[in-house]
Amino acid sequence: MPELRYDPFRVRWTVIATERGRRPSDYIVKREDIQMKACPFCYGHEDKTPPEVFVIAPPERKPNQEGWEVRVVPNKYPALRIEGELVREGVGYFDKISGIGAHEVIIESPWHEKNLPDLPVEHIKKVLIAYKERILDLRKDNRFRYILIFKNYGKEAGASLSHPHSQLIATPMIPTVVVTELQASREHYKRKERCLLCDIMRQELAFGERIVFENDNYVVWEPFASSFPFETWLVPKKHLHDFALLDDAELDELALVLKDMLLRIKKVLNDPPYNMVLHTAPTPHARPGRPDYWETLEYDYHWHIELIPRITKIAGFEWGSGLYINPTPPEEAARYLKEVDIEF
Amino acid sequence: MPELRYDPFRVRWTVIATERGRRPSDYIVKREDIQMKACPFCYGHEDKTPPEVFVIAPPERKPNQEGWEVRVVPNKYPALRIEGELVREGVGYFDKISGIGAHEVIIESPWHEKNLPDLPVEHIKKVLIAYKERILDLRKDNRFRYILIFKNYGKEAGASLSHPHSQLIATPMIPTVVVTELQASREHYKRKERCLLCDIMRQELAFGERIVFENDNYVVWEPFASSFPFETWLVPKKHLHDFALLDDAELDELALVLKDMLLRIKKVLNDPPYNMVLHTAPTPHARPGRPDYWETLEYDYHWHIELIPRITKIAGFEWGSGLYINPTPPEEAARYLKEVDIEF
Repeated sequence: MPELRYDPFRVRWTVIATERGRRPSDYIVKREDIQMKACPFCYGHEDKTPPEVFVIAPPERKPNQEGWEVRVVPNKYPALRIEGELVREGVGYFDKISGIGAHEVIIESPWHEKNLPDLPVEHIKKVLIAYKERILDLRKDNRFRYILIFKNYGKEAGASLSHPHSQLIATPMIPTVVVTELQASREHYKRKERCLLCDIMRQELAFGERIVFENDNYVVWEPFASSFPFETWLVPKKHLHDFALLDDAELDELALVLKDMLLRIKKVLNDPPYNMVLHTAPTPHARPGRPDYWETLEYDYHWHIELIPRITKIAGFEWGSGLYINPTPPEEAARYLKEVDIEF
Repeated sequence: MPELRYDPFRVRWTVIATERGRRPSDYIVKREDIQMKACPFCYGHEDKTPPEVFVIAPPERKPNQEGWEVRVVPNKYPALRIEGELVREGVGYFDKISGIGAHEVIIESPWHEKNLPDLPVEHIKKVLIAYKERILDLRKDNRFRYILIFKNYGKEAGASLSHPHSQLIATPMIPTVVVTELQASREHYKRKERCLLCDIMRQELAFGERIVFENDNYVVWEPFASSFPFETWLVPKKHLHDFALLDDAELDELALVLKDMLLRIKKVLNDPPYNMVLHTAPTPHARPGRPDYWETLEYDYHWHIELIPRITKIAGFEWGSGLYINPTPPEEAARYLKEVDIEF
């Protein structure tokens, strides 16, 4: 008998097809090659991108030359624009906001063929530092209410360039998915004076069956109501709303746990395309009294990372219902991911 | 300058990339063939499916033999099961419901190669009658709170068989996307004593620039905050919450308008894969006082059909934010769809 499962944090139901229980080898993992002449993210092509806005490089290196380790540049084809005035306007029953924002590319390393889990832990930490520094810098701009960092790996997951990179989009409103999590967290906090994700984490640790990895400071698990097979969350044990508040030691350990998680996904699912998203608190620029202002943010929200392998199709049912059908129970996915041997 | 646009009915923002303005020919429309030996939906293979639960056929035809015009059968691999007890259970902070439901396939015609818009209007009406009759029948089962009818056309849109068919899934809870629309509609009704979608329709008709087609009883338009390029809605002018209340004359005309809409999409986008979803009221089996009970349903909800061509990829940004990036403004999409010559 399949099960309908409800996630109180994302306010969403999923159908878990417990009987079918598709194994990793049952998924046809497609990885179409992305063809291109010259990669604009490789050494020597620094002039093919807009000038860098952040870089990790030796002090003697000149800007926009080779020699860097992590490089952040504006997206050449931005979804939202940094220049211009932020105008909020009503159009009858509709609303519109001028498309002000930032759209940046975090080039994770100079190595075209090395993906995030293939990099040394120390290098992964540098990518995380780039995430943090860009968030801190863009927050100074009071037009932005949210800064979303995500990674599309593989063409099937939406990547248009194969050189490993993450992306950042700053928006003048808080995106719906984040609002839903924030509202659920706030409601829980109002009732219990506890963080919802902290409570869910304690429960997952007690149940145990969906845990992939745990150390002193982080937990990796498959959520109870996983929308996708092998959906995986990386959650810090310490209650903290804001990723950008992580200190050096915390980033060190996060890099290690992230590498571990990505290596498991890569090995179990044969290097699948995936999307990874950093869920963190909004910027402090919303106004008190407005629906996107969260007074108790530091108490009720809890930053984390969500990853979904893109090995199933999203069809009319999912689009029309918001209800996903997941053919691999998270308990089984956790077992595969936990038991696999990975080499660091 | 791109625009962020808000849809008060679906409670969702979209980025409309007004500058790029991708034309239909800019989209690479993929249509991978679905290979199979013998089609279980063609004449002579009636024993390859579970026995039919509804059929439109001449009276002399025997059940589960050829000679039918529209045939509805249970899905051989159902996402939810019809047999069993409906159990609602708490699991700590989570909820679960046994996977009770119905999952049926509406085989639209015996013609393997003829898709919905290629059928005569009179035959399309028979498909709509099948939708209506299955909704009315399944509503008698008080375990079901919602009956979702949808169509995946093309492998890229999630179809696993190429013989034209729609699907139906009955669920023991109201799916999230529907709840969001219902809540927004109810809020609007509470304030104004008017239907939100009626108000939006009047406004779209006044603006005119997103209208694709209009006759006495139906309007087809591109929504202001279209999440996808060429997203298209078909909305009845008459306020009615429930598709299954349509009478014979209304179904006649709906068949005509639906054919018109699908032919336009097919011609402008070169026969793209798409998802189509019927949005209609929940069944009457929710309980008063519960969050999924809508006392004023017949006043505030408004049935309609939504269609999205699957010509763009859903990536990490969309998944992590709920915010879609649409590279073709709906005003331009409407112009293409309106101006195209179609042959009935």
